[in-house]
Amino acid sequence: MRAYRELEARKKRVSALNNAMGILHWDQQTMMPDGAAPARAAVLAELSVMQHEMETGLALSDLIDQAESEADQLNAWQRANLREMRHQFTHANAMPAELVEKIVLAQSDSHMTWREARPHNDFKRLAPKLDTLFKLKREEANIKAGIMGVTPYEALLDQFDPGRREVQVDSIFDDLAGFLPGFVRQVMQKQAALPPPVMPQGPFPVARQIELSHEVMRVFGFPFDRGRLDTAHHPFSGGADGDIRITTRYDEGDFMKSLMAVIHETGHALYEDGRPQQWRGQPVGHCRGMTLHESQSLLLEMQAARSEGFIRFLAPTMQRILCGAGPAWDADNILRIYRKVEPSLVRVFADEVTYPLHVILRYKLEKALLANELSTADLPLAWNDLMEQLVGVRPTDDTDGVMQDVHWPEGILGYFPTYSLGAVAAAQLFAAAQRDNPELLSALGSGNMAPLFGWLDQHIRSHACLFMPDELLEKATGSALDTTAFKASVRARYLD
Amino acid sequence: MRAYRELEARKKRVSALNNAMGILHWDQQTMMPDGAAPARAAVLAELSVMQHEMETGLALSDLIDQAESEADQLNAWQRANLREMRHQFTHANAMPAELVEKIVLAQSDSHMTWREARPHNDFKRLAPKLDTLFKLKREEANIKAGIMGVTPYEALLDQFDPGRREVQVDSIFDDLAGFLPGFVRQVMQKQAALPPPVMPQGPFPVARQIELSHEVMRVFGFPFDRGRLDTAHHPFSGGADGDIRITTRYDEGDFMKSLMAVIHETGHALYEDGRPQQWRGQPVGHCRGMTLHESQSLLLEMQAARSEGFIRFLAPTMQRILCGAGPAWDADNILRIYRKVEPSLVRVFADEVTYPLHVILRYKLEKALLANELSTADLPLAWNDLMEQLVGVRPTDDTDGVMQDVHWPEGILGYFPTYSLGAVAAAQLFAAAQRDNPELLSALGSGNMAPLFGWLDQHIRSHACLFMPDELLEKATGSALDTTAFKASVRARYLD
Repeated sequence: MRAYRELEARKKRVSALNNAMGILHWDQQTMMPDGAAPARAAVLAELSVMQHEMETGLALSDLIDQAESEADQLNAWQRANLREMRHQFTHANAMPAELVEKIVLAQSDSHMTWREARPHNDFKRLAPKLDTLFKLKREEANIKAGIMGVTPYEALLDQFDPGRREVQVDSIFDDLAGFLPGFVRQVMQKQAALPPPVMPQGPFPVARQIELSHEVMRVFGFPFDRGRLDTAHHPFSGGADGDIRITTRYDEGDFMKSLMAVIHETGHALYEDGRPQQWRGQPVGHCRGMTLHESQSLLLEMQAARSEGFIRFLAPTMQRILCGAGPAWDADNILRIYRKVEPSLVRVFADEVTYPLHVILRYKLEKALLANELSTADLPLAWNDLMEQLVGVRPTDDTDGVMQDVHWPEGILGYFPTYSLGAVAAAQLFAAAQRDNPELLSALGSGNMAPLFGWLDQHIRSHACLFMPDELLEKATGSALDTTAFKASVRARYLD
Repeated sequence: MRAYRELEARKKRVSALNNAMGILHWDQQTMMPDGAAPARAAVLAELSVMQHEMETGLALSDLIDQAESEADQLNAWQRANLREMRHQFTHANAMPAELVEKIVLAQSDSHMTWREARPHNDFKRLAPKLDTLFKLKREEANIKAGIMGVTPYEALLDQFDPGRREVQVDSIFDDLAGFLPGFVRQVMQKQAALPPPVMPQGPFPVARQIELSHEVMRVFGFPFDRGRLDTAHHPFSGGADGDIRITTRYDEGDFMKSLMAVIHETGHALYEDGRPQQWRGQPVGHCRGMTLHESQSLLLEMQAARSEGFIRFLAPTMQRILCGAGPAWDADNILRIYRKVEPSLVRVFADEVTYPLHVILRYKLEKALLANELSTADLPLAWNDLMEQLVGVRPTDDTDGVMQDVHWPEGILGYFPTYSLGAVAAAQLFAAAQRDNPELLSALGSGNMAPLFGWLDQHIRSHACLFMPDELLEKATGSALDTTAFKASVRARYLD
């Protein structure tokens, strides 16, 4: 047990550093004056190096070996904690320090170029930076693939959704790519026959929108004594253990996107908040990867908050707080807005039905990039062709085409799939929760989250990283990740 | 040079940790939800332990020895940096890890008890906690005194004002304790003959007060691109290198205290901001201890902002932003309010003339406590007697008597003198600056800080820790710390 105890003590320290960085990242996006950016970047870089040193090295390797040889003395949570420690060590230790540094520099260079090049539709300027970064990421993926015995793409994906296999993602995405385009046409046909949704007319002052956000967060039981909502350029959920900071951005002409962003981030926040106290600060106490994390945000945003009952419950609150009047505020109209399906160019504005097609496009392209089957220079054309083929629309520029996302310029490959795997998991969990508790859906109609959250606490939140992602899903729903519930859910919502 | 370079690299890392903790402390006082307090305390404790480990140990000791033996290869800044490294090491390494931990726990216990006991005037409840803490601080002081060859009180004072000697503080404080009580009586006699000041009548909405604060900070050239103003329970200046966060608190019935608190903290902030870029992150790049730091805040608050010219410049801005009307807003009346001298019980509300007497009281008592010549149980009586003797008023309870400050319950001994040594230094610097630049005072009358700040940049801010405190003062003003200018300044302001 000595080796295991020593590992726990080391992880407690790493966790303190992570929590500090969590608040610094939040502050950077919400509070920090612009001129402090270089100093903050330097502080975060130094702390990251410290963290990398604490997560690697021979002494740590020996401790993990030793603890594994004594694993029969550990209980189930401790064994899972040790498995997660090994997982973190494998990823961190695989990376030579020079490669880590090269990637950090290339990311920073490419990200800055992206910020400048995107508004000018100047992919040519970005291409060489991306090219350098992709080469380094290929190197990372190949090194890790060799050590872990997985494909290079899986080695990257594994950081975000541990244990996930390419063949499984292929099968889920092939299924959706086969199903969705035809389904989208059917839905659009049906929606064309309905009265077109009418947008509520603003302006909606930011102060009122904040009040509405707080009100809706209260409905979802957001713990304001250990969390807060602020404004940032992009909605996110961050902060530290026991101190959840979520953000959104406000548009005085349209409150509806921001409101759903708040609900989405609240889903992430409640997952963080629901982890067992006892394991905070240890790897097994983390949320179970990004597919599961996204399942929790989308379960709230797409499944619960867009349910008919909840929209009927919510519409009068919207109208009251925003002082709205007229037919645009009828629940039926709000429902039509929040359920409008329409192919579009930009992922973050896509509806839940076309969204997976945006993700599949990125998945296919980043696999091709990683396998060196697609050159960076050919990326815009490949993007536009595949967008036309999958979503049915063709970008007229790269700004809202291949340059729309920050992920690739930041060197984040292998992350995109988790958005749609999360959507699939959300539908699967929501269906299972309803099966186990038939009153759940009608409770949402009165703003009562207790049945849903009781189920999530029991089946997801309280387990943290005790199980692997698919094991957790299987225990909760009876099957590993599977599109059946997702397809049934969109069929029921959009065609029935 | 290898040893010295390695020390610089290590200090850069310590500095990253300090900067992170600076933002975390600021966040704790301004943004953090209450329920996150225990988690935040745990993170800060862990980071402090990391920092202590990085600041101590045999390897570091060897490196410093080695660098000192090669000091002839260093330039003046590097030598001063090495001197500061030795100073930090001496303080950190003197402390056995168990004693550090015991003090941290006793501080936390005593601080929490103080927060609960103070509103109930319950010193008996606080006494045993203070007693434990004082015993540990005595241990710390004795250990350090032995290593450093100074008195136990000096060992504590040295952390805040390096190199300061008890005999010097005694001499300055004896001088002030002899001068001030009679002077206070004279001033009060003179002020009794003038029309009594009239307080502007509120309410003054917080939003307007924030606007006024920002306006005044702009006059003082606060760098809003690398700093910000927020609200906290107590005014302070914190944050990180290149990212200065100051705070104040607002009372809708009285804007005048908060406004001066903002100017005070702006003084601290500008000192931090004025340090040389090149030495940020190294010990020599820090501000030159708390006496000098306080001199910079008091120079702005007491010398510049309370000058007649500046108040005449400021009064119309106050009136405009706060929509004031009537004779209370006349500059002469504002001057009378900001210059009212009156013995009172609470240090933080004291005027500049009686303030040093509050500090002298604490200095005498904490020296007696440290020397075991005064028991914790006898502290309230000793406090009240000395308050009556020095300030001329006697507390009727301990809430606004011996329990009014957070310092002792937080284990901070040796800090109080720097408030009044800072006031003495402020007067000395202001006099020297005016000698060197006769236009300085009239420039303040048009809100032009350039002559004053040019002088401060040249003589104080840009030197950071290149010199020892008194050396810096002597180079700037021609003499070490000395009460002449302070006494002349209050005589000119209050009697002439």
